[in-house]
Amino acid sequence: MTPPVGIIMGSQSDWPTLREAAEILDALQVGYEARIVSAHRTPDRLWDYGRGAVDRGLQVIIAGAGGAAHLPGMMASKTRLPVIGVPVQTRALSGVDSLYSIVQMPKGFPVATMAIGAAGAANAGLMAAGILALGDPALAERLDAWRRALSDSIPEEPQDD
Amino acid sequence: MTPPVGIIMGSQSDWPTLREAAEILDALQVGYEARIVSAHRTPDRLWDYGRGAVDRGLQVIIAGAGGAAHLPGMMASKTRLPVIGVPVQTRALSGVDSLYSIVQMPKGFPVATMAIGAAGAANAGLMAAGILALGDPALAERLDAWRRALSDSIPEEPQDD
Amino acid sequence: MTPPVGIIMGSQSDWPTLREAAEILDALQVGYEARIVSAHRTPDRLWDYGRGAVDRGLQVIIAGAGGAAHLPGMMASKTRLPVIGVPVQTRALSGVDSLYSIVQMPKGFPVATMAIGAAGAANAGLMAAGILALGDPALAERLDAWRRALSDSIPEEPQDD
Amino acid sequence: MTPPVGIIMGSQSDWPTLREAAEILDALQVGYEARIVSAHRTPDRLWDYGRGAVDRGLQVIIAGAGGAAHLPGMMASKTRLPVIGVPVQTRALSGVDSLYSIVQMPKGFPVATMAIGAAGAANAGLMAAGILALGDPALAERLDAWRRALSDSIPEEPQDD
Amino acid sequence: MTPPVGIIMGSQSDWPTLREAAEILDALQVGYEARIVSAHRTPDRLWDYGRGAVDRGLQVIIAGAGGAAHLPGMMASKTRLPVIGVPVQTRALSGVDSLYSIVQMPKGFPVATMAIGAAGAANAGLMAAGILALGDPALAERLDAWRRALSDSIPEEPQDD
Amino acid sequence: MTPPVGIIMGSQSDWPTLREAAEILDALQVGYEARIVSAHRTPDRLWDYGRGAVDRGLQVIIAGAGGAAHLPGMMASKTRLPVIGVPVQTRALSGVDSLYSIVQMPKGFPVATMAIGAAGAANAGLMAAGILALGDPALAERLDAWRRALSDSIPEEPQDD
Amino acid sequence: MTPPVGIIMGSQSDWPTLREAAEILDALQVGYEARIVSAHRTPDRLWDYGRGAVDRGLQVIIAGAGGAAHLPGMMASKTRLPVIGVPVQTRALSGVDSLYSIVQMPKGFPVATMAIGAAGAANAGLMAAGILALGDPALAERLDAWRRALSDSIPEEPQDD
Amino acid sequence: MTPPVGIIMGSQSDWPTLREAAEILDALQVGYEARIVSAHRTPDRLWDYGRGAVDRGLQVIIAGAGGAAHLPGMMASKTRLPVIGVPVQTRALSGVDSLYSIVQMPKGFPVATMAIGAAGAANAGLMAAGILALGDPALAERLDAWRRALSDSIPEEPQDD
Repeated sequence: MTPPVGIIMGSQSDWPTLREAAEILDALQVGYEARIVSAHRTPDRLWDYGRGAVDRGLQVIIAGAGGAAHLPGMMASKTRLPVIGVPVQTRALSGVDSLYSIVQMPKGFPVATMAIGAAGAANAGLMAAGILALGDPALAERLDAWRRALSDSIPEEPQDD
Repeated sequence: MTPPVGIIMGSQSDWPTLREAAEILDALQVGYEARIVSAHRTPDRLWDYGRGAVDRGLQVIIAGAGGAAHLPGMMASKTRLPVIGVPVQTRALSGVDSLYSIVQMPKGFPVATMAIGAAGAANAGLMAAGILALGDPALAERLDAWRRALSDSIPEEPQDD
Repeated sequence: MTPPVGIIMGSQSDWPTLREAAEILDALQVGYEARIVSAHRTPDRLWDYGRGAVDRGLQVIIAGAGGAAHLPGMMASKTRLPVIGVPVQTRALSGVDSLYSIVQMPKGFPVATMAIGAAGAANAGLMAAGILALGDPALAERLDAWRRALSDSIPEEPQDD
Repeated sequence: MTPPVGIIMGSQSDWPTLREAAEILDALQVGYEARIVSAHRTPDRLWDYGRGAVDRGLQVIIAGAGGAAHLPGMMASKTRLPVIGVPVQTRALSGVDSLYSIVQMPKGFPVATMAIGAAGAANAGLMAAGILALGDPALAERLDAWRRALSDSIPEEPQDD
Repeated sequence: MTPPVGIIMGSQSDWPTLREAAEILDALQVGYEARIVSAHRTPDRLWDYGRGAVDRGLQVIIAGAGGAAHLPGMMASKTRLPVIGVPVQTRALSGVDSLYSIVQMPKGFPVATMAIGAAGAANAGLMAAGILALGDPALAERLDAWRRALSDSIPEEPQDD
Repeated sequence: MTPPVGIIMGSQSDWPTLREAAEILDALQVGYEARIVSAHRTPDRLWDYGRGAVDRGLQVIIAGAGGAAHLPGMMASKTRLPVIGVPVQTRALSGVDSLYSIVQMPKGFPVATMAIGAAGAANAGLMAAGILALGDPALAERLDAWRRALSDSIPEEPQDD
Repeated sequence: MTPPVGIIMGSQSDWPTLREAAEILDALQVGYEARIVSAHRTPDRLWDYGRGAVDRGLQVIIAGAGGAAHLPGMMASKTRLPVIGVPVQTRALSGVDSLYSIVQMPKGFPVATMAIGAAGAANAGLMAAGILALGDPALAERLDAWRRALSDSIPEEPQDD
Repeated sequence: MTPPVGIIMGSQSDWPTLREAAEILDALQVGYEARIVSAHRTPDRLWDYGRGAVDRGLQVIIAGAGGAAHLPGMMASKTRLPVIGVPVQTRALSGVDSLYSIVQMPKGFPVATMAIGAAGAANAGLMAAGILALGDPALAERLDAWRRALSDSIPEEPQDD
């Protein structure tokens, strides 16, 4: 059965970043699939993934890529499902290239862009959960609990090492 | 009755940008309310808005602000509802300050960041519709139609003026 | 009959920039077609254009786009023909977003990126001509003449208005 | 008894930076408290800290944070006490995101922004001392002495290692 | 008699920006003097101003400059009084040059840096008032009232023109 | 006999980057020569190389350089052959200086600019091959095969280490 | 007879900027010639100008250009005379491209880079005068007088319009 | 006896960069002195150095600093001697802060700005030599020889390690 979240990424080298999204979804008991879908190297895979997403029952797509990062925006052009974009940090431009390529979409094709790198990937998982929680009260409770636990974990004072 | 979408903005001067979101929601027949909620000038209004959002029945919040734009991120810290952030263009830094202040959120509090300015605001409306369409087949159809109409409006060849 | 150069652009609003390429090709008597092919609004048109480019007899593709500019890179993923990218100047980020989205392509899919804006579009026409001139001695002569004329047009001293 | 300076930071990971402020205040014999107050993870703590700051007798607040750094500006919206902001260096954007999020405050809510990183944190301590010295002649003398000692420590000529 | 605040600027062309600080101080009934003190064109004036500031009875200095903006930092090196820096917007680099030249001070010499341009200048006035209010309860009340009035001026909903 | 491709670079230190172009050409069985031609240290070598390029039978020139990278643009001014520019990553500015110096050419002298660093160099080799393939069907087949192999190498799912 | 200063620029459109240098030299009674020498459009003119500069008796060269601004650096490679570079402001990148192309020269070929735009051009004239004044006491006196007059022209207080 | 060149820097930590200038001057047999002159920590030393520079017989000043780098510009305001500025690389902003603080000088006070870091420091030595060579034919010959040797050291082809 198709899980509600698809995590796609441009290459294997993006997985250490995108895995942060997967771990959040695991913690919140949200099902997902992880796929390598390269906008440039496997454009037809992108086409098929986008075209079939609604019918397969996917509900949210998390797409991460770096550099001239076309995967999130192209996916947004192929499906009406919410697409969450994760700019992967890059060597020369630190992910500013990824960020601009993902966030500066023209009118018509929104990509819900997250922060550059690991924090952004984790937040992609949380955003997906927040969207799904609109129709899933039990998930909403788990998400609330996750948020409370995060807040409760913050000590009052900083500690020297 | 509370509409599903809340559009909030830091000041009246953000309305010409955020109105693009409202117009998209009008076109898609999605209800919304528009409010001025300044993170700095009316922090308690922000608090109340965020704390009551779920109970009032809001489902998605679109938050636009410029410069040191804290409204979207602070709203994301106060509610688990999906928050869509719109970086408003600024005079000195063209909205790069707005963009960084909105998108670079730490792990725990995602903001679905859109492009700087009017295109980003319109896309915030579309993203909200896409999220709501997950639980509203009629809206999904209207959104599909809107997207098809956009594609169909593109001529084959450019025209000289 | 298919001309050797295809000029494609993301929207009608890019034509004032891309027309500079067309004017250069006119001056050098190189045939071209001009088409609107939006990566996001007409992705299937992009697919068809790219897949059929070699068979139709195109030899060089000039692709211009602004913002999250995916058209040049996606075209490069669909055809082995040389793709020349023109970053169109944008309102908020002056075309730096366009430039990064076009030039920072991953290994495998080069886009021959030009300067931001009108100068870049004119140069796209010249680059296309330079490529075609490798197999067309008469064009090579016309290109040499064009370059000589440009050099000869430079006065020795600046003039007050 | 409440000390005159409150040092607050978004997370434990900011302490290696903010400790520089504490060390300066130690050297100048200015009392302080150090607290973790996360704008996003503990917004109510932020609220309480800001609302109670004047009544508790705090006089200056040093606030450090990184990325979409909302703590200094939100604190400035909650209290009229001078707030000194320290942009913590970040991985992808080197603290430019922190700087813009802190310094680009709208009219009404100033944050006295320091340099990115450790030098900025040390200077936050000195700025706090300079403010308090306006009403504390003995501190003014210690600050003058600290500044003289810094100047006197500079050798005339550089040394090879 | 020397007023508590000195507003200094690099040139007459900075006055339209710095006047925003003066207007805030007028509104809060805080005395000030306004002087042109160019770090480069009148370095000795800078020296004298800085050296005499404490003895003359100044308490806070607001310094605005653009480009390679050395005035705030040099003033901070000449006096222990709090120096508030205002980066003036510039033609080519929009004030990023001013901002970096003012905020990136080395350890030892803090400049309380405000936002680029008019908002930053107004905030410099408010920061000066906040500092002086620590020793002036009546001013603290006026500042609180100014802040309340700002908050109260924000309408609930945006208005179309 | 002169090979069809000339790979030139500003210094020996650019070779680890430019070698990526050579390796692609090796894989595609395209002949090349590699030369150090420094725009600043050996300007006459640059002159001779550019002036003689057509007559020697070169068809495409790949030029890599870093910092104030003048080699690609100056070569484009000396020959009508297509010049492909590779911005080498630099220490302080990460290659943004190289990129701007190469891509922002004035009307008349296009440089086909690639991504910063190694990916850009590999793509320079592919772009050269794509240009030569226009007149060499066997090379076109090898290039198609190289592209297919790249696509086929992408696994469906990411792997944990 | 050859004047001591050569002002060269990439195109007629740079003259409104470079004329600022000429006006300073006029005011200081320093002889100069103004020439259009385009690195790309008239490379041989650049060669000849650089190679003959010492023998003709030139002593300082002021070179202005915009975008991928190669003229100052290439001139520095052709002559040991001091070359002063003026980055001309550009449309898309505001002259940051010009600045990086001029200032980031590799070891061996310094260009004395000035500020972007008109202020930089005026300063190029002053730098040339300062260099020539080392061997010309009368010029040194005129330069001192010019500097004193500039300082004396600064009023004590800013004026409202 | 005073040597012709003064190398000044903001702190001991700048010496590894500035030593590159000293080594060039050693190689060219040009005398120099090296001094730590901090604009902020030892402003009076800066004053004295600048005011006495002409009378002591200095001819060129090389000034290096990082961050809010005020030393070169302030020195230029105190003496008519040519001042060459070296932007030292910094941790957070890679020296872009240093570069902007040095190069963006207002009309009246030129600083001959070099590249960020070690290459810029070496070039500062060469620029100083080029200036002094105008009045020292023997130095001019040594500089010509140094430049020829640099050119002659460039091999024709790159070498694998």
